[in-house]
Amino acid sequence: TNACIDHQRSLRTGIPEVIYGASKTAEQVIDIASAMLKHNNPVLATRINQEKAEHILRVLPEFRYSNDAQMLHFRPTMFEPSKRRGTVLVICAGTSDVPVAEEASLTAHCLGNPVNRLYDVGVAGLHRLFNRQDELRSATVIIVAAGMEGALPSVVGGMVSCPVIAVPTSVGYGASFGGIAALLGMLNSCAPGVAVVNIDNGFGAACMADAINRLE
Amino acid sequence: TNACIDHQRSLRTGIPEVIYGASKTAEQVIDIASAMLKHNNPVLATRINQEKAEHILRVLPEFRYSNDAQMLHFRPTMFEPSKRRGTVLVICAGTSDVPVAEEASLTAHCLGNPVNRLYDVGVAGLHRLFNRQDELRSATVIIVAAGMEGALPSVVGGMVSCPVIAVPTSVGYGASFGGIAALLGMLNSCAPGVAVVNIDNGFGAACMADAINRLE
Amino acid sequence: TNACIDHQRSLRTGIPEVIYGASKTAEQVIDIASAMLKHNNPVLATRINQEKAEHILRVLPEFRYSNDAQMLHFRPTMFEPSKRRGTVLVICAGTSDVPVAEEASLTAHCLGNPVNRLYDVGVAGLHRLFNRQDELRSATVIIVAAGMEGALPSVVGGMVSCPVIAVPTSVGYGASFGGIAALLGMLNSCAPGVAVVNIDNGFGAACMADAINRLE
Amino acid sequence: TNACIDHQRSLRTGIPEVIYGASKTAEQVIDIASAMLKHNNPVLATRINQEKAEHILRVLPEFRYSNDAQMLHFRPTMFEPSKRRGTVLVICAGTSDVPVAEEASLTAHCLGNPVNRLYDVGVAGLHRLFNRQDELRSATVIIVAAGMEGALPSVVGGMVSCPVIAVPTSVGYGASFGGIAALLGMLNSCAPGVAVVNIDNGFGAACMADAINRLE
Amino acid sequence: TNACIDHQRSLRTGIPEVIYGASKTAEQVIDIASAMLKHNNPVLATRINQEKAEHILRVLPEFRYSNDAQMLHFRPTMFEPSKRRGTVLVICAGTSDVPVAEEASLTAHCLGNPVNRLYDVGVAGLHRLFNRQDELRSATVIIVAAGMEGALPSVVGGMVSCPVIAVPTSVGYGASFGGIAALLGMLNSCAPGVAVVNIDNGFGAACMADAINRLE
Amino acid sequence: TNACIDHQRSLRTGIPEVIYGASKTAEQVIDIASAMLKHNNPVLATRINQEKAEHILRVLPEFRYSNDAQMLHFRPTMFEPSKRRGTVLVICAGTSDVPVAEEASLTAHCLGNPVNRLYDVGVAGLHRLFNRQDELRSATVIIVAAGMEGALPSVVGGMVSCPVIAVPTSVGYGASFGGIAALLGMLNSCAPGVAVVNIDNGFGAACMADAINRLE
Amino acid sequence: TNACIDHQRSLRTGIPEVIYGASKTAEQVIDIASAMLKHNNPVLATRINQEKAEHILRVLPEFRYSNDAQMLHFRPTMFEPSKRRGTVLVICAGTSDVPVAEEASLTAHCLGNPVNRLYDVGVAGLHRLFNRQDELRSATVIIVAAGMEGALPSVVGGMVSCPVIAVPTSVGYGASFGGIAALLGMLNSCAPGVAVVNIDNGFGAACMADAINRLE
Amino acid sequence: TNACIDHQRSLRTGIPEVIYGASKTAEQVIDIASAMLKHNNPVLATRINQEKAEHILRVLPEFRYSNDAQMLHFRPTMFEPSKRRGTVLVICAGTSDVPVAEEASLTAHCLGNPVNRLYDVGVAGLHRLFNRQDELRSATVIIVAAGMEGALPSVVGGMVSCPVIAVPTSVGYGASFGGIAALLGMLNSCAPGVAVVNIDNGFGAACMADAINRLE
Ligand SMILES: Nc1ncnc2c1ncn2[C@@H]1O[C@H](COP(=O)(O)O)[C@@H](O)[C@H]1O
Ligand SMILES: Nc1ncnc2c1ncn2[C@@H]1O[C@H](COP(=O)(O)O)[C@@H](O)[C@H]1O
Ligand SMILES: Nc1ncnc2c1ncn2[C@@H]1O[C@H](COP(=O)(O)O)[C@@H](O)[C@H]1O
Ligand SMILES: Nc1ncnc2c1ncn2[C@@H]1O[C@H](COP(=O)(O)O)[C@@H](O)[C@H]1O
Ligand SMILES: [Mg+2]
Ligand SMILES: [Mg+2]
Ligand SMILES: [Mg+2]
Ligand SMILES: [Mg+2]
Ligand SMILES: [Mg+2]
Ligand SMILES: [Mg+2]
Ligand SMILES: [Mg+2]
Ligand SMILES: [Mg+2]
Repeated sequence: TNACIDHQRSLRTGIPEVIYGASKTAEQVIDIASAMLKHNNPVLATRINQEKAEHILRVLPEFRYSNDAQMLHFRPTMFEPSKRRGTVLVICAGTSDVPVAEEASLTAHCLGNPVNRLYDVGVAGLHRLFNRQDELRSATVIIVAAGMEGALPSVVGGMVSCPVIAVPTSVGYGASFGGIAALLGMLNSCAPGVAVVNIDNGFGAACMADAINRLE
Repeated sequence: TNACIDHQRSLRTGIPEVIYGASKTAEQVIDIASAMLKHNNPVLATRINQEKAEHILRVLPEFRYSNDAQMLHFRPTMFEPSKRRGTVLVICAGTSDVPVAEEASLTAHCLGNPVNRLYDVGVAGLHRLFNRQDELRSATVIIVAAGMEGALPSVVGGMVSCPVIAVPTSVGYGASFGGIAALLGMLNSCAPGVAVVNIDNGFGAACMADAINRLE
Repeated sequence: TNACIDHQRSLRTGIPEVIYGASKTAEQVIDIASAMLKHNNPVLATRINQEKAEHILRVLPEFRYSNDAQMLHFRPTMFEPSKRRGTVLVICAGTSDVPVAEEASLTAHCLGNPVNRLYDVGVAGLHRLFNRQDELRSATVIIVAAGMEGALPSVVGGMVSCPVIAVPTSVGYGASFGGIAALLGMLNSCAPGVAVVNIDNGFGAACMADAINRLE
Repeated sequence: TNACIDHQRSLRTGIPEVIYGASKTAEQVIDIASAMLKHNNPVLATRINQEKAEHILRVLPEFRYSNDAQMLHFRPTMFEPSKRRGTVLVICAGTSDVPVAEEASLTAHCLGNPVNRLYDVGVAGLHRLFNRQDELRSATVIIVAAGMEGALPSVVGGMVSCPVIAVPTSVGYGASFGGIAALLGMLNSCAPGVAVVNIDNGFGAACMADAINRLE
Repeated sequence: TNACIDHQRSLRTGIPEVIYGASKTAEQVIDIASAMLKHNNPVLATRINQEKAEHILRVLPEFRYSNDAQMLHFRPTMFEPSKRRGTVLVICAGTSDVPVAEEASLTAHCLGNPVNRLYDVGVAGLHRLFNRQDELRSATVIIVAAGMEGALPSVVGGMVSCPVIAVPTSVGYGASFGGIAALLGMLNSCAPGVAVVNIDNGFGAACMADAINRLE
Repeated sequence: TNACIDHQRSLRTGIPEVIYGASKTAEQVIDIASAMLKHNNPVLATRINQEKAEHILRVLPEFRYSNDAQMLHFRPTMFEPSKRRGTVLVICAGTSDVPVAEEASLTAHCLGNPVNRLYDVGVAGLHRLFNRQDELRSATVIIVAAGMEGALPSVVGGMVSCPVIAVPTSVGYGASFGGIAALLGMLNSCAPGVAVVNIDNGFGAACMADAINRLE
Repeated sequence: TNACIDHQRSLRTGIPEVIYGASKTAEQVIDIASAMLKHNNPVLATRINQEKAEHILRVLPEFRYSNDAQMLHFRPTMFEPSKRRGTVLVICAGTSDVPVAEEASLTAHCLGNPVNRLYDVGVAGLHRLFNRQDELRSATVIIVAAGMEGALPSVVGGMVSCPVIAVPTSVGYGASFGGIAALLGMLNSCAPGVAVVNIDNGFGAACMADAINRLE
Repeated sequence: TNACIDHQRSLRTGIPEVIYGASKTAEQVIDIASAMLKHNNPVLATRINQEKAEHILRVLPEFRYSNDAQMLHFRPTMFEPSKRRGTVLVICAGTSDVPVAEEASLTAHCLGNPVNRLYDVGVAGLHRLFNRQDELRSATVIIVAAGMEGALPSVVGGMVSCPVIAVPTSVGYGASFGGIAALLGMLNSCAPGVAVVNIDNGFGAACMADAINRLE
């Protein structure tokens, strides 16, 4: 194959190569996963839809699949032996944002972090968030996924002192432009201490959260 | 001159021609204002900076100028004899949004509306807004001006049942793109019952508020 | 499920949670609708295509479906007991804009407003609009949906004194950019007293109209 | 100098090289104009502000300057000896669009066309346009300049059978994006028989009108 | 139905309502066409793909279909009884631009114009165009369709004195952005006397050409 | 004044209100700073140019000004009494990025963090970065500022395991679009564990770094 | 057919017409290829998917197909008899960029160039590139294909003295905007001596490389 | 100072660090130039306006300044001792593009290349280019600078077999968007063998040309 797997990445950065499944065939995912297994590495694959997953599971039945997160994983607990400071809290604004939030939650979990979820608590009904202030305050790092106007990270950022990672989602229509409105909203957040990852990038948010929570 | 003033506009729409001063010289404003005075109309002019205002006031000393709103006006009370339902509440997110909020407040006032102001209560510190829920609830129509991520109208829209008019402001830098981030945020508001006007268009927001408050 | 339904929203804002069906499966819509029914709430769902609707109606046969508006509803008359000031007039420019106009009309109707329709009266043949000036003048609030250049709200806004809510539609091709041309045209309307909602957001326009028409 | 003047252009296209003055110094304009005069050509220069014009007129006192159109010209009647079909009608929406309309009117005049002007008749008060239907109907070709939402060419295009050339202007602020909103509106005009030139390009509109009016 | 057909349009503008088929079902096209036939009008429909056409032809077998132009027509010769000045020349840059060029050619033909075609003569091999200078010179009006960089109208505009109508096409990939690159190129043409219509709008170009060629 | 200072912000989020000086006059900055001093708070102001600073220092001579960072500060050591984990490393790509890097460095320092600087080590000469691997490895959190193509954070992110905060700068011209190219590059970083703040937002990057370094 | 093949192109530019297959049917490709074969020309076709290729190969069985490059070719060795200076090195960043890299590699090969491939060596693990410095240094011209942040050409450009041609790919999601992020990154490369072709344009990159390598 | 000069760059890439003067003060340029002189390097600085140049020349009187190219240089002949294949031909479309063309010409000259200039030969009068076919054919590499629609590189690319480097310029107004129209036109060139650099980047084009012409 044409792949040149970066087997040392985990040593350098704490996170090994993870398979990005969106533009790969089931066969290509199986090839790369098998090469990683030969090196005795744990394997994680994102953006695997149900159909592709079923195809892969027939060849690699020991893998586990999450339909909510569209992810496959195998031996993730091997990923990260070091201790963690605390809990990663994953928040999302609406029910349509759940897939992105789940990509973040499951990635963070696989990388070895305790994860807490708080879903469908968007700014149109903020009492849902205010009722959970204890959970907000006890988190070590918070990931907030939101589409449409993407206002939730600013509100959360104004309530807590821990780092907040904002994930714009492509949820919305018309002038949401596939997540651009949410992305711009988050980049312009009036709450300092908020940083942003790519649209729908739950995976990247979890890697950042992991790097923060992993600190020695 | 080249102007073809629409003297019947007030009869048709309830709001007469108002002078948009941004690209006009002091002389041009004086010409048009004088033509309106001859028809015995009240006169309002927006986007008049201090220097231009001083020049105009030397010729038309009976006019009054607001530096905060960058507006000139004369006999505005003549504008609108009809009764009003209630109060127009004008909210803004930060101190930099005040000029736009003032354009809205002063226009609404000149058009004959009781106006209430609530400034610098942005989402990074929402307790400032929650402490004023009574004022929010007693308004007949609310104008919310905000720049940067433009999240405030969604929060307000989730708290009240009256109509909310959102005004994005060009406050911000970088990825705020001169108000686009705020504009997109407001158009994608997850709170229904919010409608939007152009960036920095405090004047237009006030006209909409006036049309709502004027209803018989 | 992951949903955290905001059951108090109707009390706060006059409009309860409405199911946004676009990215939800029939099963998910059924789940959320059933939860709402248990609370004895009226139920409205938007962006439900025919196939999804048929699936849902087999489980919830008491619901009614409008193919024109792509909406499902049940007991909407319970939504809003309060009195209304007058009529909501819904105008659209071309026959391709009808689905958006119908989303607005049916939502306004379900929320308890008398609704009047005036369709296919775009600016290329303005006599069609001028022939109906009586209907324009007798409306309490007007919704105008238009795609392509989105000029119709400006023309209407120059003819009436009631509030005008403009809805850009994604009708068009090439440089219409999925509704951006119409959206920008409406935001820059030279007629004050016009406010804008998101592209294709007939639902939001109706909510704003309802808030205006509901005023005490 | 670095200029390579295309002296045959008039023979090929009916319109000679015209000096675009925006990024040229007064000296550069004088140089090119002098080279054209040596070839016994009529000379036209656009985008010449008053200060630059005064500088040039000191060296070339036989030139004439129009401040409204920001143009210099000399012997324009030599431009085009052929007969014309009829009149070029130049319309604009607001007083701020006049400079662009004047660039079109004066260019058309210099190229040998009878010109009629109809200014400040925008869509917010359409009776101003309807009162002048005779002038609209008697034109051979119509140029319509408008900024903001740029709706006027569609309305005109729906009223007449002659060709309509639309010129978006950079008049407006916020979401007008320096004329993009008007440009997109005009490109998406629902009135067929409308074609568009660049933002603020009164000169190009006049050249197109001239080519149409010049037809043998 | 919801259609409000503008039966007087032909009298006002010389071109009657034409059915835009893109977002309509075969049934909707049949309904509107039948209504027009009852008024004894000629009928033209654009953006009709083969499948839709076959469906329509089963009900309206007297209609004729062009697959190249994606158009249906019936009795087009009734459209326009008046005399024409000369020939409409339709040029396109590459073989992929032919569908747009054919929409222009067939529309111009149906409206009553003699049409000449010159296809696949793009700027990468300009000798193909230069070999046909006679045809260029003998045209009364020229339509030029081009995708990718859209340079062909500028080259043609520099060679002829008749009006040139530029049609950007959505042909290309990557940074062609569905025709935006070509559109911008044409709007910025350094050849005066070029005007532009919407991306892929062969129909609109033909209407403009017809208005020019129809002049009395 | 119109300011409604959020005095509790430091308690909630660990970072008090900081004055954003860009659109404020010297007088406005003095007013707000004085109000904060009365509450015995430390004061930080960003985006203060030299001229404005000199004006302010005449009234508040105890303040200190950094021309490199365009910041004013007073008693910053009061900001944050808690212990820090380690060092914040601030990297920038070229000499033109230094002002943004300095805004980050000085903010981080004022908030109580040990800061290390590594400037002008962009990707066109990567040996400059590789020679400093020890400093990279010993940092607790890294801020990377870069303009133009914004590639440096990806390279750094591939070398270290600590969190990386990327700051796009507006350095560049043409297709850099005032920092958009760098922003997009950073959002699409192929190195997980990188999060992004707004263009030129050195301040926000430092706040995020502080939140990470402050973790108990 | 409508094609006007430019048979002299090879003489003028060194590269004959190549069939761009994306928007052509199998029949159209067969027609044009057959016309070229009659002139005894070698034939190359790009953007031919497997299904289309199979269809074509049934009629033209002597053609060869590469699925990786999505290209068909026949007698390419006839393309270019002249000598070459050295080797074209084709580099790509990730496995998802391979199709674009293969379009470049196979085109360069067909045009008569020795080709060397170095795939999946992106900036997140730069040791993979540094280990191959000999291959970098021995190339006469280098093509670098990369998606997402598109940083690889800058890094390569800082390591070598030969010309570097950058090809942005549409690989990525969210704010990669179909290759715009990579395109902008490459245009803003801080490494001089880098030039860019269109997104996914492996073909054009190979043509440029061929022109460089062909130099006498 | 904060500069970390990459003194080995010339050895690696054939081109040393060149001072980008746009955002630097005269003092900063003098500092960096002096540091380079101490290493006995030749010095080149771009984007130096007349005022800044005069300031610098007072301190470093041995430098030479070109106002046309806005460049300073000293001992450039030391830059590149190796032999060159042939001539770099620099073409531009209009007189307003000359500054960018001169940045390219002078940089290429300083780097050791014979340079030939062909200015003001844009597509609106192509005979000016066709009259110079000999010069086009005898060049080893061609740089083409053009603003507005940026069509000239495609025309040149269709006439020659040597590599063509296209430089979009920011010349134009309205929908030229500061060079974007020209940039997109060049990226979509239908002439293969054309590669593009950043808007106004005459310097980068010359570096690419130098790398091509320097080939051993
Ligand atoms: N067509 C629509 N357009 C915009 N918002 C809608 C629409 N239909 C429903 N909504 C809103 O979407 C919310 C539900 O979002 P979700 O939690 O994702 O289902 C509801 O509370 C409504 O306010
Ligand atoms: N206002 C204008 N807008 C667009 N093009 C113009 C304008 N004025 C002159 N031109 C064109 O610009 C060309 C001269 O460009 P240049 O060689 O840069 O001076 C002339 O041949 C005219 O066709
Ligand atoms: N993959 C490709 N990308 C860009 N241009 C191509 C590609 N393949 C072929 N071409 C060019 O497209 C031209 C054919 O265009 P057409 O007349 O539309 O078939 C050829 O002369 C090639 O120069
Ligand atoms: N006109 C220019 N356009 C693009 N890059 C330039 C230009 N002039 C100099 N450079 C590059 O800018 C680098 C210096 O950037 P800096 O460290 O910010 O001074 C040099 O190494 C050059 O490669
Ligand atoms: Mg919800
Ligand atoms: Mg504040
Ligand atoms: Mg219609
Ligand atoms: Mg007016
Ligand atoms: Mg072709
Ligand atoms: Mg440097
Ligand atoms: Mg890889
Ligand atoms: Mg010229």
